[in-house]
Order: sequence, then structure tokens, then C-alpha cells
Amino acid sequence: MQARALPSIGIDLGGTKVALGLVDRRGHVRDFTRLPTRAERPATAVVDEVVASVRDRWGERLGGAKTIGVGVAGQVGPDGTVLFGPHLDWHNVPLCSMLARSLRRPVAVVNDAQAATFGEWRFGAGRGAVSLLGLFVGTGVGGGLVVDGRLYQGASGCAGELGHLTVERNGRRCHCGNRGCLDAYVGGWAIAERAKAAVRRAPGRGRRLTALAGVPGGLTAESVVQAYRSGDPIAKELVTETMDLLADGLVSMVNSLNPSTVVLGGGVVEGLRSLVPSLGREVRARSLPAAASGLRIVPASLGSASALVGAAAFAREVPRR
Amino acid sequence: MQARALPSIGIDLGGTKVALGLVDRRGHVRDFTRLPTRAERPATAVVDEVVASVRDRWGERLGGAKTIGVGVAGQVGPDGTVLFGPHLDWHNVPLCSMLARSLRRPVAVVNDAQAATFGEWRFGAGRGAVSLLGLFVGTGVGGGLVVDGRLYQGASGCAGELGHLTVERNGRRCHCGNRGCLDAYVGGWAIAERAKAAVRRAPGRGRRLTALAGVPGGLTAESVVQAYRSGDPIAKELVTETMDLLADGLVSMVNSLNPSTVVLGGGVVEGLRSLVPSLGREVRARSLPAAASGLRIVPASLGSASALVGAAAFAREVPRR
Repeated sequence: MQARALPSIGIDLGGTKVALGLVDRRGHVRDFTRLPTRAERPATAVVDEVVASVRDRWGERLGGAKTIGVGVAGQVGPDGTVLFGPHLDWHNVPLCSMLARSLRRPVAVVNDAQAATFGEWRFGAGRGAVSLLGLFVGTGVGGGLVVDGRLYQGASGCAGELGHLTVERNGRRCHCGNRGCLDAYVGGWAIAERAKAAVRRAPGRGRRLTALAGVPGGLTAESVVQAYRSGDPIAKELVTETMDLLADGLVSMVNSLNPSTVVLGGGVVEGLRSLVPSLGREVRARSLPAAASGLRIVPASLGSASALVGAAAFAREVPRR
Repeated sequence: MQARALPSIGIDLGGTKVALGLVDRRGHVRDFTRLPTRAERPATAVVDEVVASVRDRWGERLGGAKTIGVGVAGQVGPDGTVLFGPHLDWHNVPLCSMLARSLRRPVAVVNDAQAATFGEWRFGAGRGAVSLLGLFVGTGVGGGLVVDGRLYQGASGCAGELGHLTVERNGRRCHCGNRGCLDAYVGGWAIAERAKAAVRRAPGRGRRLTALAGVPGGLTAESVVQAYRSGDPIAKELVTETMDLLADGLVSMVNSLNPSTVVLGGGVVEGLRSLVPSLGREVRARSLPAAASGLRIVPASLGSASALVGAAAFAREVPRR
């Protein structure tokens, strides 16, 4: 690790796992480790283990890192407090000050999808875009915005919650309490629910999905994607409808925000990567011509590292404390 | 007009009328005139008459104005060309350069709803907001965004087209070609269409609306608002549904953009101004708590002058050429 690299530590703190990396100024992950979150523990225990992992891996000097950036699965207040992390079951956890105190470096905490968007803007598929919209579809749906070279975080830090765009009024109930949210259709949890309902409606028609429905925990967004690839007819309908719903949400954002580039990522999109070009055509066809002209819609290129890399870059460029 | 006032000319160029005003640096309209657009004429004829009106009213010195700002009912490209103005039937009209050449002042051309949002941010109900979302509902629906003290215009100048948020997938056909757009429900034209359909479904039930339906051109958004005020039951249902649809669109924008303030204006909102507080409560209740906390939702305070005042201020502060 050369001094010129001025690395930054990036941490992707999710509901299932925590990924930690030493990231150089070019966005390359020089060293990497991970640990299970075990979110059933108190938040302090999770943070203590993250701190211990950083020290174990990179020593007192933190591998030469000058800054630490965290992308966390939750809504983050302006002071780096995690206001609410549904998959972590965190409420008002002062993550930024906890880490800064223990690791004695400036720490920036942002929402994980915001971090991923910043990573893709700085080093990935949205590199240098004038205005970038990131949409990430995994277990849940998240997003972020980079405007005029800055991550736009909103008045209370939670801009980019694209999962809670209404796509169908009075539609499916979302865990946010509202109805008809994009997340309630295309989030991994929602795809699994829709798959279960589809199998109930027509058992035996999609053989592969029907078989999976018999296995506890067998019907997931991942298994739907796999069944789609193997030609299962119900999975095909579900995927077609999912892409159509994503187009609905994206058209809303393209018309209202007029970004120059849209980057699509997350596990569900990665699994259906071959459909991104046709999704892009659909979005452009249905958006206002003035907003669609010149619009690029591309898959993310940093894969699962985007939040980690983005958080590290954000901390280096916009340190908080 | 004192020199210290450094006035700017503001022009609100709509499909029906053109409003022109000499606006001082405090946002006060010092002098005002208007003319019918007569949009059936060629664009050059409209622009020539605007130029002649400015000269007639304020002379060669243009009343001391150093800049000219135009808010136009259309999508505006980065160079001030009106790419498309549906109500003007304008396509690629180089409005900025035409006016700058004739009036020999720096001219800024922006979309009228963007101008109105900027006006409300600079001098009106959204004054000084960290991040402001403006939604204006008249014959059509428009909007704008001010982020970190700057009007956010988007990659090709058409950010803020909130009328083309999808609120009901596969819903009503919109004149933009897509389906289920907010504009296709709550734009004045759409309210009139919904009213006609409601009267057809239950003739005689809403006596006032039924009577108006018999008069050619009698059923308009305005007459629906008047019938609502006089207690017509169909009008009441239409207005309730309209407010609910506005809430759907606003929840999407609050969740995805996390503005500090939302300003609501335009003729339809002005007519239903007493309902803005309950609309605000509904939006806050259905938005993510992190985005709803601290959110202000207020009616516009500059009335029909917001676009004119905003365009004048924008030109003074961000001159283009």
C-alpha cells in the first residue's frame, strides 16, 4: 500500500452481512473482508465487531486509511445517525460518532443505495454523468441521485427512496405502511410473495416454481430468476411484469428528474442483466421525448462492491467529522 | 424606478396569455401588462408582439431593466430553445436568442413551472427552503425543483415534469402518449373529462354538474370547483379523488427527493386552497417518516405572478446570454 494511494476504508453494512474494504483513490478494492451482521444483536455489538474487524485486518494505522465511509441499509440523518434501518432493526443509532470515536478517523455515513450510486458515478457505469439516478433492486429497492457532481441526500438525508414511488394507487400493501409502492412489487421480498400467489392461482403450471413452493423458503426472488432462465412459464410472466413495473417507476423518475444517466444494479437486476437493454428501450419510449433524448440507461458495473467503493470515495471527498 | 432597484423584466408566456412585468430586486412587480397569446399565429409573430409590447411599455431603456427572464409553457433546452410547447404548438423555437437579439439584454428562458418554483423559493411561500419542490396544477400539471439554492433543470432542461409521474399503471391515457400520468387525472383538462364521465354514469345525481354538462364548454375544472363549493355530490367525489391522486404523486416525490418544503400552486390548487392543509396531512401520513419529519407543505403565495417574478429573478441571478 503506497502512501500516494491515500486509501479510504469502505464499509457496506447490510442486514445480512458487513463487507469491509480498503479502497484506493482509483476505486480499486485493495483488501477485503466480511462478516455476518447477526442483526439480532444490539447495534452496539454489531458496531464493536465492525471496529474489531477493521483493527484486526488493518492494524492501528488502519492500512494507511485517512477516512472511513459507511453505506448502511437504512435512512441516515444529517449527522450520520441511522434513523431507521428496517433490515437491521436499528432506530436512531449514532453510527457515525460511534465509529469516529473508536477508529479516530473522519467518518461519513450514508444510505447504502446512495453510496452505491456515488460509487457508480465516481468509478462505475455512471462515471462522470451530469446527473445520475441509481436504482438498486435487491431484497428491497433503493436509489440515489448525483446532481452536478454531488450526492443529493435531501433535507433529512433520505433522498433516493425510489422503492416508495407509488406505481399503482391502492395497490399492494408495502411494509412502509403505504400502498402500491414500487418496492411492494419488485423488491426481492415482493417478488417472492407474488410468486407464491401465482403458484396458488395456477398450481402445476410452472412446474419448477410449483416444486420450489413445496420447499420451505424455496420461493425467493433468486429462485424465480433461475426458474425464468430455465423457461418456467409462471416465472416468465412474473419477470415480464417485474420489468414493466420497473419501467413505470423509472418513467416517473426520468420525467420528474431528467437525469442524463440511469444506472441499474442490485441482485435482482444482476440476475436479469440481459433484460436491461429492453427495459431501457421501454423507459425511453414511454418517457417525455425531451427527457428521453440523450438518456443513457445502463447496468451497474461495480457489482456488489458499489456501496463499499462509493462509501469509501464519499468519505474521502466529503468527510463529515 | 431608482437605479438601486435594478429591475428585471419577467415574462410569463402561456398558451392563452402573456403576462409581462417589471420586477424589482425584492420581487415586487412595479409595472405590469398582458396580451393574448393567440397561439394559432406563427411563433415569430407571437415573439414580435412580445418585443413590441416591452418597447411600448418601457421604452428603449426597458424601464432600466438589465435582464429579461421568460417562463414559458413548454420544455426548454439548455440554450433557451423551446423544444416543445404543447399549448403553444411550438417546436424548437429559439426563444432566448430571438429575444436577446431584439431587446439587447441577457435573456434567460425556463419552463414556466420551474420559473414559478424559483419565484416561490426566492420571494414566496418557499422562501429560502433548503430544497423546494413546486407543484402547479392548472390546465396541465407542472413542477420544479430548487436544490441547494439552485434551480435544478435536469440534463436537458425539463426536470420537474411532475405531471408525468405514473400514479396508476395502465391507467388513463395521457396526451404524452403514456398511461396513468398524474396530469391525466388532475390536470384541468383531465378533471373536465372525469367530470363528463361521472355525469354520464349518474346523470341527475349532481344537479349542478349535470346542468353544466348540457352547456357546450360548461364542464371545466373551474366549474367543478364551483360546483364542489355549492355542495354538488358528484363534484365532491371528483374533488376528493383529485386530492387523493395529488397525494399519490406527492408521496412519490417526497419519498424520492426528500424536499424540505413543498409549494402547491396553480389555478386548480388556488380554487381548492382550503384543502391544502388536509392534503399536507395525508402526504405526511403516507410518506416515509424520515422524509415526512420536518416537511412543510404550503400553498403558493405569489399567486398568478409566481412564474413572472421567478423568471425575472432567475434572469437577474443566472443570466444566460
